[in-house]
Amino acid sequence: MAARDKPEILSVRTAARSRLFHIESVNLRFGNGREVEYERLAGERPARKAVIIVPVLDRRTLLLIREYAVGIEEYVLGLAQGMVDRGETLAQAANRELMEEVGYGARRISRLCTLDLAPNYLSYRTDVVLAEDLYPRALPGDEPEPLEVVPWPLADLPGLLRGGRVTEARSVAALFLARMHLEDAAPTTGAAAAPFGA
Amino acid sequence: MAARDKPEILSVRTAARSRLFHIESVNLRFGNGREVEYERLAGERPARKAVIIVPVLDRRTLLLIREYAVGIEEYVLGLAQGMVDRGETLAQAANRELMEEVGYGARRISRLCTLDLAPNYLSYRTDVVLAEDLYPRALPGDEPEPLEVVPWPLADLPGLLRGGRVTEARSVAALFLARMHLEDAAPTTGAAAAPFGA
Repeated sequence: MAARDKPEILSVRTAARSRLFHIESVNLRFGNGREVEYERLAGERPARKAVIIVPVLDRRTLLLIREYAVGIEEYVLGLAQGMVDRGETLAQAANRELMEEVGYGARRISRLCTLDLAPNYLSYRTDVVLAEDLYPRALPGDEPEPLEVVPWPLADLPGLLRGGRVTEARSVAALFLARMHLEDAAPTTGAAAAPFGA
Repeated sequence: MAARDKPEILSVRTAARSRLFHIESVNLRFGNGREVEYERLAGERPARKAVIIVPVLDRRTLLLIREYAVGIEEYVLGLAQGMVDRGETLAQAANRELMEEVGYGARRISRLCTLDLAPNYLSYRTDVVLAEDLYPRALPGDEPEPLEVVPWPLADLPGLLRGGRVTEARSVAALFLARMHLEDAAPTTGAAAAPFGA
């Protein structure tokens, strides 16, 4: 599976701009000579990462949040997430978002992986972290109303996902990835610790 | 977990527009009286759904594709996906995309669930389908170059995800959800058929 040479970027120009969004038009030439024009949402330069947090209380309870999402005009259940601010480490950003959105701090933050959101259109990348050894600690956030915190048993992750209670793709992916990580780390005796891939 | 009343939408106006994107500015009043202005990418009205396909060959091989993604300027490995065209059923759209991107048709298409991409900013929703009983059948697509089809053993899904080979959030979520579905459907004898949640 050798990597192909990437297409050559011939030009990048601003196609439209609003308060929040910056749309770029990109002209490309593929290896076979074919030229195309794509549009994408430009990220900040240099890029800022987002972080999504899987907080596990007492090794057995997931802490989810319910928040209003104007894109689909519904309240949605998912994981705390936010941007890594300039000058913050990933762990600092994760802890700040956790305190602002869930009302807990974490003594242990483990980075699991990076997710892309819609790589054909966005440069946006999100690091997934597991937050453990939690302690109550709230920070004021910038939300227009307090978020509802929803606990859910870690052992019943299938019930959470089968029922369509969580539908946001990054939250679904992060929950499964955290479970896989916890199963890898667990001792190999006992049914509850059976490795995911068994 | 009773649902809150949704915020009242006071106004929606176009903030910017390009060939592909339409950005809306939305004024809202939350239940506590707080008023805010959000921006979102407007979808088509009426909304068109996307579909993402988990194709399983001979009950044991996942068929992934590698495609250039201009948002992150990299080739990425993931699942075939596309829009449901007007007049198409979900199964028809899934089969067409599968033929265009992977070179197979499916005699059996099962809808597993719906994923949201970034519900704070997008109305975009994607149905996840499992495609089984595959047969070779290629249709010409609109890609500027042929996509590389990458087979991967279904039994080694953890190896695919642990190694960061697939990072696109919807593909990661869809692969785990398909595995959970297949494990639910499998007979309960034998280690390989142990239910995911056991």
